Amino acid sequence: MRSASESAPRRGWRQGDAFAPVAVRRQWRAGGVQDGVAAVCPRVVIVGGGFGGLEAAKALASAPVEVLLVDRRNHHLFQPLLYQVATAALSPADVAWPIRRILRRQRNARVLMAEVTGVDAARREVLLGARREPYDFLIVASGATHSWFGHDEWAPFAPALKTLADATAVRRRILTAFERAEASDDPAERERLCTFLIVGGGPTGVEMAGAVAELARQSLPGDFRRIDTRKTRVVLVEAGPRLLASFPEALSGYARRALEKLGVEVRLHSPVTRCDERGVELGEERIDAATVVWAAGVRASPAGNWLNAPTDRAGRIVVASDFSVPGLPGVFAIGDTVLARDAAGRPLPGVAPVAKQQGAWVARLIARRVRGAADPAPFRYRDAGQLATIGRRAAVADFGWLRLSGWLAWWFWGLVHIYFLIGARSRMMVALEWLWSYLTHDRGARLITRD
Amino acid sequence: MRSASESAPRRGWRQGDAFAPVAVRRQWRAGGVQDGVAAVCPRVVIVGGGFGGLEAAKALASAPVEVLLVDRRNHHLFQPLLYQVATAALSPADVAWPIRRILRRQRNARVLMAEVTGVDAARREVLLGARREPYDFLIVASGATHSWFGHDEWAPFAPALKTLADATAVRRRILTAFERAEASDDPAERERLCTFLIVGGGPTGVEMAGAVAELARQSLPGDFRRIDTRKTRVVLVEAGPRLLASFPEALSGYARRALEKLGVEVRLHSPVTRCDERGVELGEERIDAATVVWAAGVRASPAGNWLNAPTDRAGRIVVASDFSVPGLPGVFAIGDTVLARDAAGRPLPGVAPVAKQQGAWVARLIARRVRGAADPAPFRYRDAGQLATIGRRAAVADFGWLRLSGWLAWWFWGLVHIYFLIGARSRMMVALEWLWSYLTHDRGARLITRD
Repeated sequence: MRSASESAPRRGWRQGDAFAPVAVRRQWRAGGVQDGVAAVCPRVVIVGGGFGGLEAAKALASAPVEVLLVDRRNHHLFQPLLYQVATAALSPADVAWPIRRILRRQRNARVLMAEVTGVDAARREVLLGARREPYDFLIVASGATHSWFGHDEWAPFAPALKTLADATAVRRRILTAFERAEASDDPAERERLCTFLIVGGGPTGVEMAGAVAELARQSLPGDFRRIDTRKTRVVLVEAGPRLLASFPEALSGYARRALEKLGVEVRLHSPVTRCDERGVELGEERIDAATVVWAAGVRASPAGNWLNAPTDRAGRIVVASDFSVPGLPGVFAIGDTVLARDAAGRPLPGVAPVAKQQGAWVARLIARRVRGAADPAPFRYRDAGQLATIGRRAAVADFGWLRLSGWLAWWFWGLVHIYFLIGARSRMMVALEWLWSYLTHDRGARLITRD
Repeated sequence: MRSASESAPRRGWRQGDAFAPVAVRRQWRAGGVQDGVAAVCPRVVIVGGGFGGLEAAKALASAPVEVLLVDRRNHHLFQPLLYQVATAALSPADVAWPIRRILRRQRNARVLMAEVTGVDAARREVLLGARREPYDFLIVASGATHSWFGHDEWAPFAPALKTLADATAVRRRILTAFERAEASDDPAERERLCTFLIVGGGPTGVEMAGAVAELARQSLPGDFRRIDTRKTRVVLVEAGPRLLASFPEALSGYARRALEKLGVEVRLHSPVTRCDERGVELGEERIDAATVVWAAGVRASPAGNWLNAPTDRAGRIVVASDFSVPGLPGVFAIGDTVLARDAAGRPLPGVAPVAKQQGAWVARLIARRVRGAADPAPFRYRDAGQLATIGRRAAVADFGWLRLSGWLAWWFWGLVHIYFLIGARSRMMVALEWLWSYLTHDRGARLITRD
């Protein structure tokens, strides 16, 4: 059963009907047509310019709809490479692009930089502070944010990586720690400053630990006079029994050995019980570390609150199999902000391909409904595999039918990531930055900046 | 007459003598040699890693001294291209490099990231908060900062360009103004948001005005739906009778015409009498502008206060012809923080070549004194000419014997700036960014970020 408001264009709306399409309501306000209109172009509002929202907008390019994409930032961010900004290998502009630039040739799309504060589902309007944007269809793709598992007081000591500002802040902490160690006359303090602890053994934690170790062991030596950055201690802490829990066990083992070869201490079965300005506690044990990076938990954006929709423990909206939010006609939610399951009932992972496929599918659904066609075949996630890199010539790739580790996986990882960047300029620049780093061990963006 | 402390190494210092070389005082502290030492390696402390300080450090590479370069930032900044960061053409990492990376092969040099809080000339120590760094020779090259001509209350409304953080803040303001204009329903507010006012008709103001006009007229159109960025108003305000006052009049005229061709309103004889959150006042006239950039005045760093030395109205230390600070043995000051004059008594301009030549000359002076050789020939500024760019294929160059304007000057400007960047990586990256922008009118770093 579909509600009327989700159906194809039709006539006969009555003045004042809150569920009339946006185009009809606009004409009432303008004092135009009284009841209904002949041609209605429904309005799709997309909240969030991440992988899911952007893909949905693009997939609506040829649909007879007007698209409004709202994001509180002006840029789409390629999060999988954010750790390279945090470790001074890439610049923010290498991994982020203005959303309106990406959509500039799509004539039915508009982009608005604004912060969503709520949704008035009764009037079918998105609230942006004092401003209201009406919708016929709403796609909520507002992603996820950090979670310190109920310990938000740890945030100042263990910053996480989600935005460009997070990445440059972590970069500042890492580089400042080495500067302060070089300046310090106290051996204990120098040791604390040269200890870097990463919490969370998922792909971000593994990549971050490998990148910090390479920075310290390969890029920085020679630049300092009083400290030996090759003696830097990098500790990767994971609460569970293995790294990269979503990968096959053999690849987890490879990742651990590869990190240890880089000099990273891998601590499994080690839940963090406390973070403070001196370091962290792992149960009884205390590790003094000036720089702690949190790569352990995420929670969904507050979209569940905006919509007053039921969520799971991580704040993810529980959606129907067509990503509609139960009880809210015309409202869909996708990506990291929802709990979606595959055919076998397993939750889908919070990765870019899931969000992109969901975005494209919901866009197709809306386009077909607007045209009065039948719904598409039910959504099915096509798992293209997963990748994680550890360091120079070391990565793991799992395609289900094929598992790779080592240099071949590393080259594959690099090519895939360059392929998925947006635009020829970024591909060229990132490829050159990587080539340069590969040949020289140098990092291009070792800047300590602060607004 | 030279003071003893500035002389070549000698024996016979008496325990506790505050003027004994640093190496001797260290050995006293360590309980070593009692009175004097055989071989003394004097210590040169350089404050500031800008053009002057860095050049001085490099020029001491083969001198029998130990060099300590202190800067409160970790990077050397190529200020002539900072306006390109502010207008989204280049990334911060394209125009800044870690100082310790630049000096890493210079074994007699150490780099310390710390903020100078004063100088204890009696004990010959630089104060860095609680820390003290002794010197035999001190080169103060701490540069300049903004000046709002006694109106510091204008600073929040008319930010200036001196640091990377300034540049990304100005970039954020410019890009946010267009975003807010696109979102606004109020025509007057849209007009105010699409008005950009640059105060100061020197090279920075001219380059900034040209770059904002090109951003609005060539890069942004097509990305917006509700505003036409080609109608952006860019106003360049200069108190004096012409732009680029240090250039020949013919080139000033060319710069003005080139800017007007780009759609910039040039207002001469227009001193700013007030800045507030709505815009600026030029005497009776009021211009509403959401974004104002201050490119009008600089004042010297507080080095005059640290040294308790006489300064001019702009805070610049009045130095002797050998850049020594009168009354302070072993202390020199160079670059934007001093008032230096050429042979004819005219003040030298606050540009990179002046600071670099002064830095190299003072380093040579110190090296010769340490070796017991005669002082070098008096400093003479070799004026290599001046350059300013207005926009695509438009620039002015003045070499004294040759004056250029137009596309040839523009190509020359580009080549010179790429040549003076540090390292092959930056040269390659900036050249590619420029080539890309030239071909596509695109800008690589249109990011609104905030820490």
